[in-house]
This record gives sequence, C-alpha cells and structure tokens, in this order.
Amino acid sequence: MNAIPPRRTGGRAARRAERSAPITGAMRSIRPGMEGGRYSSLTDADVLRIHHTALDALEQIGLADGPPSGVEYLTGAGAVLGDDGRIRFPRALIEDTIARANRSITLMGRDPQHDMQLSGTRVHYGTAGAAVHMVDVDGRNYRECTVQDLHDAARIADVLDNIHFVQRPMVCRDIPDNMEMDLNTIYACCAGTTKHVGVSFTERAFAREGLKMLHMIAGSEEAWRERPFVSNSNCFVVPPMKFATESCEVMEEVILGGMPVLLLSAGMAGATAPSTIAGAIVQATAECLAGLVYVNAVKPGHPAIFGTWPFGLDLRTGAMTGGSGEQALLSAGCAQMHRFYDLPGGAAAGITDAKLPDMQAGWEAMCSNVMAGLSGLNMVYEAAGMHASLLGFCLESLILGDDLIGHAQRCVRGIEVDDETLALEQIRDVCIGGPGHYLGTAQTLARMQSDYQYPKLGNRMSPKLWDEAGKPDLNRDTTARKEAILSERSAARFASDVDQAIRQAFKIHLPT
Amino acid sequence: MNAIPPRRTGGRAARRAERSAPITGAMRSIRPGMEGGRYSSLTDADVLRIHHTALDALEQIGLADGPPSGVEYLTGAGAVLGDDGRIRFPRALIEDTIARANRSITLMGRDPQHDMQLSGTRVHYGTAGAAVHMVDVDGRNYRECTVQDLHDAARIADVLDNIHFVQRPMVCRDIPDNMEMDLNTIYACCAGTTKHVGVSFTERAFAREGLKMLHMIAGSEEAWRERPFVSNSNCFVVPPMKFATESCEVMEEVILGGMPVLLLSAGMAGATAPSTIAGAIVQATAECLAGLVYVNAVKPGHPAIFGTWPFGLDLRTGAMTGGSGEQALLSAGCAQMHRFYDLPGGAAAGITDAKLPDMQAGWEAMCSNVMAGLSGLNMVYEAAGMHASLLGFCLESLILGDDLIGHAQRCVRGIEVDDETLALEQIRDVCIGGPGHYLGTAQTLARMQSDYQYPKLGNRMSPKLWDEAGKPDLNRDTTARKEAILSERSAARFASDVDQAIRQAFKIHLPT
Repeated sequence: MNAIPPRRTGGRAARRAERSAPITGAMRSIRPGMEGGRYSSLTDADVLRIHHTALDALEQIGLADGPPSGVEYLTGAGAVLGDDGRIRFPRALIEDTIARANRSITLMGRDPQHDMQLSGTRVHYGTAGAAVHMVDVDGRNYRECTVQDLHDAARIADVLDNIHFVQRPMVCRDIPDNMEMDLNTIYACCAGTTKHVGVSFTERAFAREGLKMLHMIAGSEEAWRERPFVSNSNCFVVPPMKFATESCEVMEEVILGGMPVLLLSAGMAGATAPSTIAGAIVQATAECLAGLVYVNAVKPGHPAIFGTWPFGLDLRTGAMTGGSGEQALLSAGCAQMHRFYDLPGGAAAGITDAKLPDMQAGWEAMCSNVMAGLSGLNMVYEAAGMHASLLGFCLESLILGDDLIGHAQRCVRGIEVDDETLALEQIRDVCIGGPGHYLGTAQTLARMQSDYQYPKLGNRMSPKLWDEAGKPDLNRDTTARKEAILSERSAARFASDVDQAIRQAFKIHLPT
Repeated sequence: MNAIPPRRTGGRAARRAERSAPITGAMRSIRPGMEGGRYSSLTDADVLRIHHTALDALEQIGLADGPPSGVEYLTGAGAVLGDDGRIRFPRALIEDTIARANRSITLMGRDPQHDMQLSGTRVHYGTAGAAVHMVDVDGRNYRECTVQDLHDAARIADVLDNIHFVQRPMVCRDIPDNMEMDLNTIYACCAGTTKHVGVSFTERAFAREGLKMLHMIAGSEEAWRERPFVSNSNCFVVPPMKFATESCEVMEEVILGGMPVLLLSAGMAGATAPSTIAGAIVQATAECLAGLVYVNAVKPGHPAIFGTWPFGLDLRTGAMTGGSGEQALLSAGCAQMHRFYDLPGGAAAGITDAKLPDMQAGWEAMCSNVMAGLSGLNMVYEAAGMHASLLGFCLESLILGDDLIGHAQRCVRGIEVDDETLALEQIRDVCIGGPGHYLGTAQTLARMQSDYQYPKLGNRMSPKLWDEAGKPDLNRDTTARKEAILSERSAARFASDVDQAIRQAFKIHLPT
C-alpha cells in the first residue's frame, strides 16, 4: 500500500492542475521492453509442425547461391554442399545451433539509457525500412527522400518516448554513390539520435569504412566494441531459399567488426514465399535458421536477431501490401516461432498501404503493431511512419506513431490482478456507507498516472470543447509538433572535434 | 486438394480480370461468427480470482434498489434481502444459475440469412450506443441526430458485409416524447435492415407498445415469438451495485414478451467502477451475474447476453474515454470471463475519442476491435461509427468500419496449419527445377480469394497510381459511397399494407 499517498486537502482546481502535470519516467504506465506473449496465433502443435517442416526444408531442399566464404563457414559447421550447389542442413546441426545461440542480447544506444534487452517476450518498437519517398502531408504529395529527411526522422524519433530504436527507414535518394550513401546514413542517423541505430551496408568494403566511422563516433575501436550502438540489417537471403552473396559478405565483415546483426528474410507471400501464412512462416523460419548457423559459424554466440519478415501481397494485382490482416498474422506467427526457439527476434508491423495519415493508416498500423506486441515480438520493425506499402515515409505519422505505439504498449502491459486491483474492499467501502462513486478514492488518485496511458496528440475533447478550441485538426497539429522539434538543433550531434575528424575522413552531405 | 482448380490457359489480362471479379459469399475469406479466443488477456488463475471476488461481492455487498417485482423474483430464487435494503446472493445460487443458463443463443434477423449463433468464442461485430450527435465529415461539424439519421445508419449497415447486427447507435433527438422515440427507433431500424436489431426501452409501458409493433412487423405474435428479430438492451444496473428500477421493469416485460435481452452493466472505471481494470471487471461481472439470476428467475433459460461493458475514464479530466488501451483491455478481459462461464457475452469496442474519421479514429477503433475478436467476444458492440467517446455517430466511419472490421475478422480467422498450407512440397517444386517463385502456382491462384481479405475503400495503390488517379481521398470516397447507398430505397421497408397498419396504430415520424 506504499504507493497510495495521503488524501490531499487542496481544492478542485489544485487537484486538476496536479493531475495535468507531465508524467515523469518512473511514473509512466508504459516502458520499453514490457513482456508480451498473451496472444498465441498458433497452437503448440502448429508451432511444432512449422518447426519440423522448416527442418525438413533445410535438410531436403537447402539453400542455393552461398558465397565461397559462406560455403566454407557452413560446411565447416556441418552443412553439406550438394552436387546441385545447394547447401543442406542436417537436423542435428540446426538443433545444436539453436541450443547454443545467444538468447539474450543487449542492443545498445549511444546513450545507455536507451539500451534494449532482447530476451523472452520483451517488446520494443522502432523504425525500419527503405522508403524512397517522403510524404508531404499538407501538400498531399510524394517526393524523393534525402539525407536531410533521414536525419530529421532520427531527430524526431529521438524525442519520442515510444520509439525505442531507429533503424534507417529510408534511403538517401540524393546521394547516388552507394558507399557515400551508406556512410552518410550512419552519420545522419547517429547525429540525430542517441538511441540504437540500424543500418544496412550494401558491400563488404562499405561496411569496413562504416566501422571506421563508428570507431570515431565511439572514440576508439575498443569503445565501439565495448558498446556497439549500431546494428546491421542483413538481407542475407533472396527468398525462396537462396543466399544473397553480397549481403552475406557484409554480414561476415560486420560480425568480425563486433556489430550485432539482424538476419533478415523478407519473402513476399504469393511471390517469393508460399501464399499461405503457414507456408510463408515455414520458409522464413528455415531461411533464418540457416542464417543462424552461418552467424554462429563465423563467431559462436554473436548477437543475431531472428528476422523472419514475410510480407503480404495483393494477389489481385501482384503488388506488395503491408497493411493487411494477413500481414498482422504473418508477423504474429513469426513472433511465436521466436518464443518457441527462445531467440531474440524481430518482424515487421505498423505498415500501412494508405498514402496519407488517414483513418486507414491508423487501423492498419495499429492492427499489426498491437498483435505483434501481444505476441511478445522483441523487435517490432517499421512500427511507425511507413506508408504506401513501405514506399513512403511520413514524419507526421512517425510522431502520431508515438501515441499509437504507446496505446499498443498499454495493451501489452496487460491487466494486473492482485488483492488491491481486484478492489473488493474498495467496492465495499464505496457502496456501503460510502460516497457511491470512486472519483476521489485514494486508490483512484494513486493510480491515475501509473495505470493509465495518455495520448499526446490524440484528442479526447468533448464535441463542445473541440468546437470551442477551433476544431483542431490532428494532422495540422502534428505538423506543428514536427516543426517545433525540427526547429531545435539535435542534441545527438557529435562533439565538434569528432565531427571535424569525421568530415575530414568522409564526404558528409549533411551541413554542420 | 479439391479446392485447386486446373491451371488456366487464358492470357494475363484475362487472369487479372478474373482476379478482380467480385467475391461471392462462399468464397469470402471471412464470415460472421468465426471463432476467436487465441488471445488471453488474463491467466487462468486471474480469471478464477476475478470470479471468486465477484462472488464475494455478491454475497457480502449485494445490490441495492431492487424494484418490488425484482425483489420478489430474486428472493424467490434464493437471494436474500437484507435490513439495509441490499439483495445478497449466496454463492450456490450464482453457481446454479450459471450452470443452468442458456449458453447457446440464436439472435435472429428478420431475414434468416442474418441469424447469429452466439456460443463459445464465435465473434460478431455490430453497432450500438446512444449518440446524441451526427458527425458531418465534410463540414467538420457535430449536429443533433434525428430519426432519419438512425434510419440511414440502419440502411447503410444493412449492405455492409461485416456489420452483423444493428443495435441502435443513436437517439432520435427530434422526437421529444420518449415513447414516440422508442417506437420510432424500432420502426427506423427495422425499416432499414433485415439484420438483427437492438433497441432499449425506457419504460415498461413503452415496451408493451413496442412489442405490439413488432407483432405487426412479424405478421403475428406467434410469428414474432417464433423468430424474435429484435433484442432489448437493459441497463439494469446503475453501477456501483444498484439495480435500475425502470430498466428492470422493462426487462421483466420484454422477457415475458419473448425478446432476448442484453444484461448491460456500463460502469466507468474511476467513477462508477474501480479505476483498476481488474476491479472494474470484477464489479461488472458481479452485476451481470446478479442480472443473470434475475432473468432466470423471471423465465428459466431465457436468452440473455452477459453484457459487461465497463468503460474507461480520462482521470485527468474526469471525462469518459472509449478509445484507450485501457478500454481495449477492459473489454478483452470481460470476453475472457464470458469464455470462462461459457455464456454468450458482449462488450464495447471500436469506440474512438477522435471527433472525425482521422488516423486516431483508425488506431483506436482497430485496437479494441481486434483485441475483442481475438478474445472471442460473441458480440462486439459499438464496433463502428462511434466518435467523441460515444457522443457522436458518423456514417462515413460506419462504412469504413466495414473494411476495418473485415481486417480484424481476418485476424480472428487466424492461421491454418495443415500439410497443404505448410507447403513443403510447393517450396520444393518451386526451388528445385521450378520457376523460383510462387506467383503462378496452382496453390497461390486457388487461395487468392479464400485466404485473403480485400478492403473495399482502403487504398492499396502505389504512389504513382494514386497520383494518376487524382490522389483519391479516403473520406471523400466514403462520402460518395454513403450517398450512393442512401440514394436507393431501403430493401428492408415493410410491405405497404403492414406499413399502413403500423402508421395507423402509431405516430411514425419517418416519411413513407
């Protein structure tokens, strides 16, 4: 009962003011890494069948196109290279790898307060993707995105409580050189946020250069290796069941450079993966298990995120769709496979097919985000800002995503049941000789902040108050918030000597 | 393998046309009454604690303010009237009542194709509420709602596949006389839809008149009693733990008149119910259990829906909020109590606090709707159209709700796991000597309609196509759909002789 303060004696206005005060960290009703897992889209028997089918696929079908270095690592670990060039994986090799893999990873932020503990069913939400367009909400327009947009997205994500990491959500279309783009992606993200950053190198040589920049940002290679605050997203397979040569080479490089990896299998159900949800999960699981063998062959126990990211397709048109119910089930089912393996995992959610932040955008983003959280997905990627089936990124939606994800997180937190919350004594006190309502009970007042999650931009006014307030418009209010955030210089910018050194060593496109 | 058609030989355009053809009933990927229940917001131990606390509350605290007739029914059944005027319920009475209650109810439509089977975890979505405002989307305005608005809402709901029932979502503010309003509510709803209708009578005498009208619509009292297509929503309690005299009297009347009842307990967590989610569920459960004893004392086995509808409150302002994560948990937790009792149950979801159909409206409506469905809630009330924390109803949101609920239903349907969906042979065929993709496989083509749910208004165009199409606006498109629906006369209108007879017997405000 320690949490209950003594009854206050102030007037109504004082109480109202106290209630409206900003909520401090410890008092917040939600936090990164809350445990999900109360929703099971698959039965235990289903999970086992998916697992065994994935093992069958790895043993009987295997993966093609391994790079020479990868073939060496994998056959060294016990995989078998067939005459048809496919690498097949004995069941025992997969089972041993799962048993020995790293099952508790800390993904670090440049600021340790943003560290994420990936284990069990702890849930984190963040950005990701490779959008090529920025969504201009006010102008109802799509335009190519730039390195400044990427930096702005990182800066905004940095101040949003419920965006827990910043994997780069878009590519810098204004930097034609791929190596420059990779390096400027690191710079733009890390100069915008001290949260954990994710990038995706195109070639092995770029990764080597990128690591040099990261050593400079960290202060030294040792400091970087001590606290690697950037991970690499490796599209190490080209589904179905083929290794992606260059991405595998990048993966080897970053593993040796001490960078956590995301093993990303992004099949499209109906195109590069089976059209059935179960089949798409089988294939993604098989591919990521192959990747897990690969990572552990390069460096046993290296931090790797099991990145089963199957996507949906609109089979009528053959176009990708990321906002469907099928998509929500794909990611929820994958989360359950991660739980079964007890491996840190991630998948995509929060995507919308809508072109603008409208009602469709809201329902599509929420559906997959809340189901992913309830499934206990460790890393919910692409959780905010992604429009047009991943082609567009929208800063307003990113900001609104903070409210949306906070709401989903409240659901992930769930229902506490104990003597106090069951409230029998409170019901008795209120009903028998009491006030007949709970408005002013000590229990109600004490839990106002700790139990309830309040939106920042979501509007709860009555129609009357809304009218009196000039009928505020959600998107317009959000654009104003965006401009306010971007009007201040990023607190994550590097110290000037570090910045100068980086700019001398690399061609940085972002102005100082 | 019967479901797989032979490979087609037509050209690409022909296939595209075939794929875009409208989806017929049997081929639809979703249907009313699919089984949910894969999400459990409460552990089994939590459920038992809530149950036992509710029994404690009924035994020790009981309910005040029973009407004389109700006291007679309840004490006749074994409840105990205390010196303090409270009626207390021995545990054995509650347990016996649960054991003997009707656990499989058919809620009928005027057209039998709309019958709903309420049992187990079968999920249905529909409207409900008592909004006083209509939302004018284009004018960004709230105005008082009328009987014509109610009729229009019913007409629209009638043609939306994923709105399974029409409990009246608003009150007719243009009919000041309460009895006239109750009777015109029946008329406006039933003349707009042949789906199951829900109303809520204010007084016993009005219910008696309403039943007369229903006999006329049905053709006779016998025909009505054979297939009662209207249920009554009884706010039989005034939380906390008090009977509502007039509503209880109405309830007795409609039970004797053969009308299914919704036992509705609508406490507000933090005001008329404990602020904790668990405590609010305890109180709602206790109240509905008392109601169940009442119903079964009046008529054993009478169809009753266990209507635990606790609502959330914004404790900073004391105003109701229906769009929160806490609200989604309240309804999900209640659904699990219904599952535990194996009683047909309903709760509120789909509400938004947003004033207009914007992104907030989408995320709030989806969160509670999908969680309710995954929880296996039989009747998801207020699932579409409800804005401003229940104060406003919006026809555009009702129409968009059809897409939103279809999406949620696809998630409720879940993931089928069998040899065919696991797709090992398909993966093998595609990868080894096959085309290397799944686009044209017989399995993909066969499942295009039966496995995938497609939105009607939700936009999946690429940015390029969207631009070429003149950047369609979701709300504007939806208004156009609304106008198209309302431009046609309701197919649910009564035969002219029946209509004439009704209009002679009652003052009907809706024009012929």
